[in-house]
Amino acid sequence: MRAVVLKGNFEVVVEDRPIPVLRNSQDVIIRTTRSALCGSDLHPYRGTEECAPNFILGHEFVGEIVEKGADVKTFKIGDKVVAPFCTCCGTCFYCVRGKTSRCLQGQVFGTAGFPGALDGAQAEYVRCPLADSNLFICPPTIPEECAVLMADIFPTGYFAASRFLENLDELDRRELTVVCVGAGPVGICAIACALTMVDRVYVIDPVPSRLEQAAKIGAIPIAAGDDPIAQIAEVSNGRGADVVIEVVGNLQAFQLAFDLSGPWGKISSIGAHSSQFQLSGPACYGKNITFAFGRCPVRGVFEKALDILVQKHESISFLYSQIVPLEDAAAAYAAFEARKTHKTIFACN
Amino acid sequence: MRAVVLKGNFEVVVEDRPIPVLRNSQDVIIRTTRSALCGSDLHPYRGTEECAPNFILGHEFVGEIVEKGADVKTFKIGDKVVAPFCTCCGTCFYCVRGKTSRCLQGQVFGTAGFPGALDGAQAEYVRCPLADSNLFICPPTIPEECAVLMADIFPTGYFAASRFLENLDELDRRELTVVCVGAGPVGICAIACALTMVDRVYVIDPVPSRLEQAAKIGAIPIAAGDDPIAQIAEVSNGRGADVVIEVVGNLQAFQLAFDLSGPWGKISSIGAHSSQFQLSGPACYGKNITFAFGRCPVRGVFEKALDILVQKHESISFLYSQIVPLEDAAAAYAAFEARKTHKTIFACN
Repeated sequence: MRAVVLKGNFEVVVEDRPIPVLRNSQDVIIRTTRSALCGSDLHPYRGTEECAPNFILGHEFVGEIVEKGADVKTFKIGDKVVAPFCTCCGTCFYCVRGKTSRCLQGQVFGTAGFPGALDGAQAEYVRCPLADSNLFICPPTIPEECAVLMADIFPTGYFAASRFLENLDELDRRELTVVCVGAGPVGICAIACALTMVDRVYVIDPVPSRLEQAAKIGAIPIAAGDDPIAQIAEVSNGRGADVVIEVVGNLQAFQLAFDLSGPWGKISSIGAHSSQFQLSGPACYGKNITFAFGRCPVRGVFEKALDILVQKHESISFLYSQIVPLEDAAAAYAAFEARKTHKTIFACN
Repeated sequence: MRAVVLKGNFEVVVEDRPIPVLRNSQDVIIRTTRSALCGSDLHPYRGTEECAPNFILGHEFVGEIVEKGADVKTFKIGDKVVAPFCTCCGTCFYCVRGKTSRCLQGQVFGTAGFPGALDGAQAEYVRCPLADSNLFICPPTIPEECAVLMADIFPTGYFAASRFLENLDELDRRELTVVCVGAGPVGICAIACALTMVDRVYVIDPVPSRLEQAAKIGAIPIAAGDDPIAQIAEVSNGRGADVVIEVVGNLQAFQLAFDLSGPWGKISSIGAHSSQFQLSGPACYGKNITFAFGRCPVRGVFEKALDILVQKHESISFLYSQIVPLEDAAAAYAAFEARKTHKTIFACN
């Protein structure tokens, strides 16, 4: 089969690899129809996330089950499925609480070289373990390239937004000052979700075209170079942000989120950070601040996120309308790294 | 009147000061009957919190209203009242949300030299601003020296515990691994509250007598020198703590809280931190960790905390049974600093 393989920093190639085989009775083999290029694929691509060379990239995909282990009960050959990027067992301490991203047996597609390593899905076929507790039937109400977003970035956006915005009362819906730092693909998903929970979301990004896209779905854009801290202070009667959704995953973005936050500010940070943070204890105390970090439990939030995606998918179709052949992966990585493209979908079969 | 005054690092004296007078129409003057020595009084005492010299210490008190401004409606002369340590207006963005500790007009008793400064209550009289939105009638069901705990440390303990433990389902009540770092007075209050929310609370402290007192009210003691990280890992099937209540407010305690935490760990930190924190971004992401910092909104949590104190006050009577004359303040500060005493109550009148 053909597969997108990381050879070294900033170097991916499409090459022949063996079609994966079942390794245990809960596995399925999936013939990938669509996979996607995600911001977090750029971490190993840039070398900011250490990993073994020569592994197959990609953790967002939909496809058709072509082979299944003897203990797979819920799915049959021919089912069209979408797979959360982090696998889960459904029964451990975390899974029973919906916190599936830290499942005790969890693995992440496309992260060879790490504990929990699993070959990626930017390929014609992929092996998925723990199929029954992991997969979802591909939602029939949205296009399959849109369903790819349900593997990671749309639930991740939902998770980022919902941690501090779910179930607000009317007063908070109307009055909270909510800011999204970052208008890349996850930022767009987070904004789409947040706007079902509060009346207004501000968005900060250095890239004008990204801000424009965020504005089209209803966010209020602020250029990163245009003193966002002063602007947010002004629109919040001097308070600062009440909730910041930080989707970038670097130190600068996190620091901006902190500086934007007012008293009782809450920061929902979902990027895979690679830096050290230096935080002022007196400022943390003085702001009564709350931070939440970490990986989205896709399975745990899947239904709620899907409800919103089904409602809103046409307004964010730019996230899944750029479909290129798998063979063009090298150019797609380079363009995404240069922020020339938003989200790229690979046609794998 | 007689008042406890900070002269410099580790130096307090009891000296004569003028009886305070009304400054505006919402003020009252209170004849203090009991005030208390709090862990956070040690910050200016040690010089780790910068402040002007020669100010009156103390932010925990009960007393009787002896004079009131023209606009005070809720209270009358002779009312016995307890005052949250941070004052609040009742109407600002934060107050209407119960987040009264960051009231836009908020001041803290006994913090002269800071914005929001207000003379302290370790004195025979104290002026309280914004009386209607600030004061509570002293609960008749508990002794007045116990009611002093409602000014700060008992609600603070409640706040520390409830942020991540309130409204748990039965499974979490039974299964969560909850650790309190610190068994000083606030730790005792936090444990008393947490044990109404979960079945088990572990407590870590270096002082054996404090651990013994925590054990008496139902916590499971772990000596700080006895590899608490390994012990907590063992009792949590290798996960680590699910919730850590950090009541110490220094870097070492915070770092321990972080290291104790497992995946999806939540740290409720209520100390007034004075250090810088160095946090690992990959560890924050990898643990899906949540931190919450800051000052307790006493008014916002008052009723819920009081319900627990009324139930449990006899079991923590050691926190309010050491009553000494105000004139003994210098010795009381020195003994508390040396961790020879738990909580000291001053008889002021």
